[in-house]
Formats: sequence, structure tokens, C-alpha cells
Amino acid sequence: MPLDLPQGFQYAGVRCGLKKAAGKLDLSLIVSDTPAVAAGVYTQNKIVAAPVVLSRSRTPTSAARAIVVNSGNANACTGVRGDRDARRMCELVERSISDTHSHAGIAEEQVLVMSTGVIGRFLDIEKVESGIEQAAKALSSDEAAFLRAADGILTTDNGRKITTRRVHLGQREIRIAGMAKGAGMIGPNMATMLCCVTTDAPLSASQAQSLLHRAADRSFNNISVEGHTSTNDSMLLVANGMSGGPQMSNAEVDEFGEHLISMCIELAKQIPADGEGATHLIEVRVQGAESDADARKIAYEVARSNLVKCAILGADPNWGRIVSAAGYAGVPVDVGQLCLKINGIPLFAHGEPISFDAAQASAAIRSQFDTLVELVVGSGPGDCTHWTSDLSAAYVEFNSAYTT
Amino acid sequence: MPLDLPQGFQYAGVRCGLKKAAGKLDLSLIVSDTPAVAAGVYTQNKIVAAPVVLSRSRTPTSAARAIVVNSGNANACTGVRGDRDARRMCELVERSISDTHSHAGIAEEQVLVMSTGVIGRFLDIEKVESGIEQAAKALSSDEAAFLRAADGILTTDNGRKITTRRVHLGQREIRIAGMAKGAGMIGPNMATMLCCVTTDAPLSASQAQSLLHRAADRSFNNISVEGHTSTNDSMLLVANGMSGGPQMSNAEVDEFGEHLISMCIELAKQIPADGEGATHLIEVRVQGAESDADARKIAYEVARSNLVKCAILGADPNWGRIVSAAGYAGVPVDVGQLCLKINGIPLFAHGEPISFDAAQASAAIRSQFDTLVELVVGSGPGDCTHWTSDLSAAYVEFNSAYTT
Repeated sequence: MPLDLPQGFQYAGVRCGLKKAAGKLDLSLIVSDTPAVAAGVYTQNKIVAAPVVLSRSRTPTSAARAIVVNSGNANACTGVRGDRDARRMCELVERSISDTHSHAGIAEEQVLVMSTGVIGRFLDIEKVESGIEQAAKALSSDEAAFLRAADGILTTDNGRKITTRRVHLGQREIRIAGMAKGAGMIGPNMATMLCCVTTDAPLSASQAQSLLHRAADRSFNNISVEGHTSTNDSMLLVANGMSGGPQMSNAEVDEFGEHLISMCIELAKQIPADGEGATHLIEVRVQGAESDADARKIAYEVARSNLVKCAILGADPNWGRIVSAAGYAGVPVDVGQLCLKINGIPLFAHGEPISFDAAQASAAIRSQFDTLVELVVGSGPGDCTHWTSDLSAAYVEFNSAYTT
Repeated sequence: MPLDLPQGFQYAGVRCGLKKAAGKLDLSLIVSDTPAVAAGVYTQNKIVAAPVVLSRSRTPTSAARAIVVNSGNANACTGVRGDRDARRMCELVERSISDTHSHAGIAEEQVLVMSTGVIGRFLDIEKVESGIEQAAKALSSDEAAFLRAADGILTTDNGRKITTRRVHLGQREIRIAGMAKGAGMIGPNMATMLCCVTTDAPLSASQAQSLLHRAADRSFNNISVEGHTSTNDSMLLVANGMSGGPQMSNAEVDEFGEHLISMCIELAKQIPADGEGATHLIEVRVQGAESDADARKIAYEVARSNLVKCAILGADPNWGRIVSAAGYAGVPVDVGQLCLKINGIPLFAHGEPISFDAAQASAAIRSQFDTLVELVVGSGPGDCTHWTSDLSAAYVEFNSAYTT
């Protein structure tokens, strides 16, 4: 099935040697043929990597031209030299594009940058330089180039994470393409979730920023593997308007926003599904909280509990662990209304244990990769869905076998 | 070395069959010969077990006579029947003591109750009844009885957790004895940390309550295994004044409070040290935060991070995981002042990585059970010390092998 790539974007993914493993791509470049709107959402960690500081200062904007991404090194906790290296990556894009492309050059300030990989090591800027030069030469709008760019941002991921969509909005046909990487901080010393969405829809910078915030809130802000917020999480939306047509109506912008949310959820779920050692993707749906914010806290505590994760690994319908985790989120829970289902099977209702067939409930967890945990915590309007992975011995082994 | 048991207390620990494993004690009784001051600190989980609800309603008090504890069943999430069963345990103590002891009887209202074990199962009240009757007959002030009581409150613990102390306060000699159990929610479907401190010091109910709050805040509120707050955590201080002497001066009360804090820290550290599958006890010391509350949040996020726990398991001086965890506690961190040492070896200073001998740092972690993580996050007055265990594959295996 062909990918629905937006018009007016070129992609490249190359190898410059930042990753040790032979043959792994580790530098990606995305270029818009014309100045584009770009919005960003970034990690809420107080310790932020140099590329986050730089990109954050440049979004939202109406004049973005390129995104450069390296994997294998997060350029985080690298002090003043790290800041210089992040800016240097943008300058190298300016120089390389000007050298190799006849059409209007790109200014350093029009470049956004993302990094992912080991924390606390200085970038090997010579390798990065050769990578950016290679990438500038390899830029192409074809599918293979898009896929290589999606591969170049991966670290310990088992597979690439992409989604594309073609949407009719009024008379206009637009295309949206997303790529993501990561699974929280799953790898040895690795950091970072990254996501980049390109579209040819004509959005204003403020529209793009508010749509991206809303989409992040419903997708990437509701996934976890072990709950370790990285120093590098970044999510960018670049919209170059090349689909043509007049300004979008409010209804069309809203419709675009709904597509963006569902595509971001699609991408976001791929992250815990690919979590280190994961044997289940766990979807925790909380309803009836006093507010969405309260529901989010409860869903996250349930998803973050190692005891809940271990129970799902062992296909154990251990409702006591789930109910007790819901209770310590620090927000109101109405015990008398508390109900829990796992994979549709009621285990606890209105504050009392109910009898159920434990073997059947266990089989329902064991027999499928997806586990659905549904919690009703009251009769309020607040709800939230969070996705996470289970916790296996393989996760522990992988994350303890490494030596700095 | 003889234990320093306070005067005027009797203890018993018996087996009534609530635990499956043959020979394991599962019911303990502590009785004060005279009405005693009792203070309590309880779980902050919104889902609280029936015994917590009942004991909480009865402390602080100046008229406590007994504490009854069962292990093997948490009497949590058991609805109205659970409430009835908790009260029934107190009534059984009233009846049994009146039947077997000539001295003044105990009223049901003078009894505090704690339960620990499986969540969501109704108590087998016939077994509990036979246990309380046995315990009432077995009450004794000798050391063996104290040790049996300390054993009767354990669940998946590998060993008993006790501490005793004799203290001279002015002309008065007082004794303090503490017992604790648990390691967060470590076991399959198990809950609960419990701690009970008895003393013959003459304290008022309000003094006891405020000293206990302060001690909990410095000890049991700063330990974790996996961060799953249970439904049953309870900590009681019972002071019967049998040491004699006049009312304690403020200075003596303060001195008593310091002893209580250090004894509670001693007991509390035994819990993560005995954490399921633990190969290290990790002490996380945070200094320089804007407030103690901020320091506590940072220490807890570091201690709760599976990536940090896995690094210590693997003897990996992986400072990136620790520094990044400090950054997502949601409180201010001054990156420019951020410094980290592990076992005294500086790894990160003033926001920049520093060169260190990785093999030496790794050996320093591998060669001892205790790991000290020291973080300076600014120049504020806030500090906190948190104790936790590392995370091993044995933890995952143990907590996933169970089937409800």
C-alpha cells in the first residue's frame, strides 16, 4: 500500500557512525521546499538536552525549512559545549543544503534539531558533519527516503514507527505523515521519545501549536514504559501548505485536529508495544473521575505500578493491585462506585469483590497481546486512556547488563 | 544481647492457619497492663482497609489497652463485611482477655487492629477467633513472646524486623521496642507495611501523636520498594508511662523524639533491605532543594526509577539515569549547581559530566550491599534521605508467578 506523503517535503536517512552497530542509520534530515509552519511540544523534565533548548526557542514559527535528527547520542547533560554542538548541527544543514541545492538556501535559524541516544557524552561533531553532508545529497521525496529517515531516528526500537494518511477537507486533499521513535527511556543509558509529523495542510503557526498540544495531550503524554521522563522528548509538526487551496475554515482545522490526534495515538501506542521486553500492550481507561486531570493521574499510577505490570506479565487478574494503585494517585476516588473490568470481565464492582472465573480471566489476558483495563472511579465527567507495557525479567536484564 | 523491652507490656504470637505455609505465625497480640497513650499514622491511599478505618478512628487516645494484628489477609476491599470483621477482632480481644486474665478487663473500644496479607478476601473469622483465644492465653512479657509477636506480623519478609533501646532521660530510665514488617507491596497480592512501637515513657496523647508523625515523616514515609502505596500501612506508638517519674520536660520529650526517629529509621531501612529480590539497599540523599518537600519529591523519583534500580543491580555508575530522574520530579532543580556522587565518587558536577574511573565506580557498587547516592540540586535549605531497593529479575519473577 503506497504511503500518503505530503507534497513539498524531502527526506533522507544515512549512517555516519554515531551508533556502534554496523549498518544502523543514525542521522535523518527532513526539508520543506518552502518556508513552513512548525510547532513543537517538548519534555517537561527540568534537565533538558541542548537540542530541546534550541528547538524550543524556535517554535512556533512560520519559516521553518528543515529538521535534523541524530540518534546514538542525546547531546544531554553536555553543558556549554552541547549547546554549541546543537547550533552547529543547524549551521551544517545551512551550509550543506546551500552547497547541494540550487533552490533558495536555508538559513541556520530555519532549522530545528533533535537528538536521541546516550546521555552525557559529547557529540562526535566530525561524524555529524559527514552525516549531514551525505543526507543533504540524499534528499528525496520518494517513499524509500521517508522510510530511511524514519529508521535514522531509532535507537533500541525493534522496528520503525510510522503512520500516513490522506484526508479530504472541503475541496482540498491533504496528506499527513508521522514518524516516531522510542519507548520511554528503555535502553541502556538511552533517552528519548521523538515524533515528527509533516503535512501539506495550510495551517497558521498558532493553529499548528494548539493542535499539536492537544494531540500530544491525548497521545504521547499518555504513554509510559517505566515512567522515566527523558531529557530529550520532542514532538514537531511541520505544515508547508503545499496542498494549496484557500485558508482552512475553523471546521476544517478542527477536523484536521481530530486526524492529528488519532494518528498521534496510533504512533504513541507503537512505543509501549515495542517496550523493552514487553509481552503485553496495556490500555488503562479511567472514567468517572472529577476531571480529566484526575483521571490522568489515576491512569498513570495504575500504568506505572510494577506490581500491576508483573501481574499482566503473569496473566494474573490481580484486581487488588489495580484498585490499590488507583487509590494512591492523590485524587478523589469514590470506593463505593469503584468498578474494574479486565478484557471486559468484571472483577470488582461498587467497592466489593465479585466472584469471577479466575482461569477464564487469566486465559483472556494470556491469549492476546493487548490488555484492556477499565476502571470507573466515580460519577464525574473526567476520563483518560493511558498505554503502557508490562514488566518482564528481560527488561531488567537488558537495563542492568550495561556498563557506563 | 538482651532486648530492652518496656515495662508493663505483654506479647504473644501464635498460628491460627490464616497463612498457608505450615508453621508460620499469623496472629499477634500486644497488651498494656494499664490504659496507655496510643498514636497512629496510616496509609495515604484513598482505598483503605477496614482495620485502618477502625484504628484511625481510635487514635490518638489515652486509654488504649491492646493491639491485635493478623497476617495472611489484609481485610482490604472487603466492603461492609470487612468493617464488621475488623470490629469483631476487637470484640474477641475483649472477650478473650476477660476470660483469661484476672486483672481489669479490656473494653472493645480500647483495642487497635492491623491486618496484612492478601487484598480482597474475606477473613476466616473462625480461625481468627481461635488465634485470639490462643494469643490471650500465651501473653507474656518475656523476650521470646516479643519475638513471636514480631514474627506473627510478617508476610513475605525474609526475617523479623525489630529494634529496642534503653534511654536515660533525666532521672528516668525508659525503654522503647519497635517491630515492623513488609517491603512496600512486595508479595504476590500482598499488601502493607506495619510498625508498632511500645514504650513505657510517660507521654501525653498529643505528644505521642506529634512525635510519631515526625518520626514517620523521616523514616517510613521515605522508603519504597516499587512505590506501590498499600491499603493497609499502619504505624502505632503505644506509651503506658510505666517507667514512672514525673511528667517529662519539653527537652526530654524532644530527646525521646530523636530516639524515636532514629529507631524508626533503623526499622524502616530493614524493609527495602529485605525487598523482594533486592541485591542492594540504596540510600538517596538530596540536598540543596528549595524545601524539604521538594527534596523529598526528587529523592522519591530517583528511588522509584526502574532504570536507576536496574543500573545499581548491574553495578553501573549510570549517572545519566539519576540526573534525568531528578529533573522530572516537577520541582525546581538548578542544573548549573547539580552534583552527583555514588559511594563518594563524584560523577557529575555543576551541570557537566566529569571524567571518572568507571571500573572503580562499578566495583564500589558491586562490592557492598549499601549504595549511597548523593545529589546536590541547588543551594536551598531542603534535604531528604530516601531508602529503596534495586530491581532484579527475581522481583519480576516472584510477582508474576502468582495467579489470583
